[in-house]
Amino acid sequence: MTGEARGDLEILTERLVAFRDARDWKQFHTLKNLLVSLSLEAAEALELVQWKTDEEADALLKAGGKLHEALRQECADVLLYLLLIAEAAGFDLAQAAAEKIDINESRYPAEKARGRADKYTAYQEGKD
Amino acid sequence: MTGEARGDLEILTERLVAFRDARDWKQFHTLKNLLVSLSLEAAEALELVQWKTDEEADALLKAGGKLHEALRQECADVLLYLLLIAEAAGFDLAQAAAEKIDINESRYPAEKARGRADKYTAYQEGKD
Amino acid sequence: MTGEARGDLEILTERLVAFRDARDWKQFHTLKNLLVSLSLEAAEALELVQWKTDEEADALLKAGGKLHEALRQECADVLLYLLLIAEAAGFDLAQAAAEKIDINESRYPAEKARGRADKYTAYQEGKD
Amino acid sequence: MTGEARGDLEILTERLVAFRDARDWKQFHTLKNLLVSLSLEAAEALELVQWKTDEEADALLKAGGKLHEALRQECADVLLYLLLIAEAAGFDLAQAAAEKIDINESRYPAEKARGRADKYTAYQEGKD
Repeated sequence: MTGEARGDLEILTERLVAFRDARDWKQFHTLKNLLVSLSLEAAEALELVQWKTDEEADALLKAGGKLHEALRQECADVLLYLLLIAEAAGFDLAQAAAEKIDINESRYPAEKARGRADKYTAYQEGKD
Repeated sequence: MTGEARGDLEILTERLVAFRDARDWKQFHTLKNLLVSLSLEAAEALELVQWKTDEEADALLKAGGKLHEALRQECADVLLYLLLIAEAAGFDLAQAAAEKIDINESRYPAEKARGRADKYTAYQEGKD
Repeated sequence: MTGEARGDLEILTERLVAFRDARDWKQFHTLKNLLVSLSLEAAEALELVQWKTDEEADALLKAGGKLHEALRQECADVLLYLLLIAEAAGFDLAQAAAEKIDINESRYPAEKARGRADKYTAYQEGKD
Repeated sequence: MTGEARGDLEILTERLVAFRDARDWKQFHTLKNLLVSLSLEAAEALELVQWKTDEEADALLKAGGKLHEALRQECADVLLYLLLIAEAAGFDLAQAAAEKIDINESRYPAEKARGRADKYTAYQEGKD
């Protein structure tokens, strides 16, 4: 591959696949199992703020603490499962995300959505 | 930035931040709200296989169908929330994932973990 | 209360409220926190079968083992959060469930739904 | 059954089992599927407060509105899956919940836990 940068996610996926195959774990990686694990890892990230107020939770955003590191690791786990799913389904996750931003830009026009937490269907139904 | 490729995730994060700020949505993006949304998007991905057997679910992995596209979009949504969290907490998500693979490599030595679905603590406790 | 039995859930709710108030915990029980906790407890129950096949998971249904007891306790935790939510919102959970069965009976007519895992909207759209 | 009241949950379970069996749905009710559905229904309940502040979410607790009814129905769905799991695993859900309150009473002594949102392990480690 000359003259072209390889993406972060491509490199991570290669390492993940090598890791998985060295352990003969593909047999456990049905789509259903990967999606269950994705959901469970997201729950573990959420658990970090379970009984906290918004203000207390936002304190985790500051680098340095034990909980900041825990948040970083839980987010990493979620990404690893996303990459395994994307690899199994044969799509490019970064491209999928770029296209989803495109979709969101048309669903949520800046001038209508400014400062509002509504779902996009609220605009389409002419409620504004 | 000469002579150095910018990562996929860095580019996506820039677009996301611009999208968010053009709508004045940072006010809604407390860590708690982002983590709740991460969890809900993961649940929407899981919902795609809710009543399916492993075999039926794996059929979604084949490109072309409506459910394959739905899976792709739900995974994209999960990634977008991960990036918003990483941006708010000031860590590099790709680097966090690379380090998590390092950790997993030491937790799950290939020769011990081959073909086993146990949690790594099973090896540490000398159960093998 | 003469001549009338008090329901299981009513009795459990009374104990829960007394437990909560003796610890001055109502301050933490915002609806959002209770719903986050409900979701996290459901995830802990799901985690018990994370990497298992359907057959392996069904083995947990047999009384006696450690995992059967874990399943029982996780389900209990989910129920306790449901009861706290119902108490806070002032509805009768058992009655809500009875009405939901009524709704499901009309959404899923037995003769149409027999042996099918589709969502009820599939019938309404005349897809059968 | 003479002279003894039957519990709410027992009656609901009987109706649920009849509903399930009239549709020949037991074949879909593996433990794994029931636990996935439990988690997804809990997520649907959480989604009702997704972008709300604690104050906005607590407004759902007031009877009368559309969202109050939605909350009631989502909680009912969660209970119905709990009952299907308890039936499949052969345990009494109300009794499991009563025992879990007993456990919590010993884990969280009122005098130590008053006004604190810590996990019980914080007391056991002598951190108070």
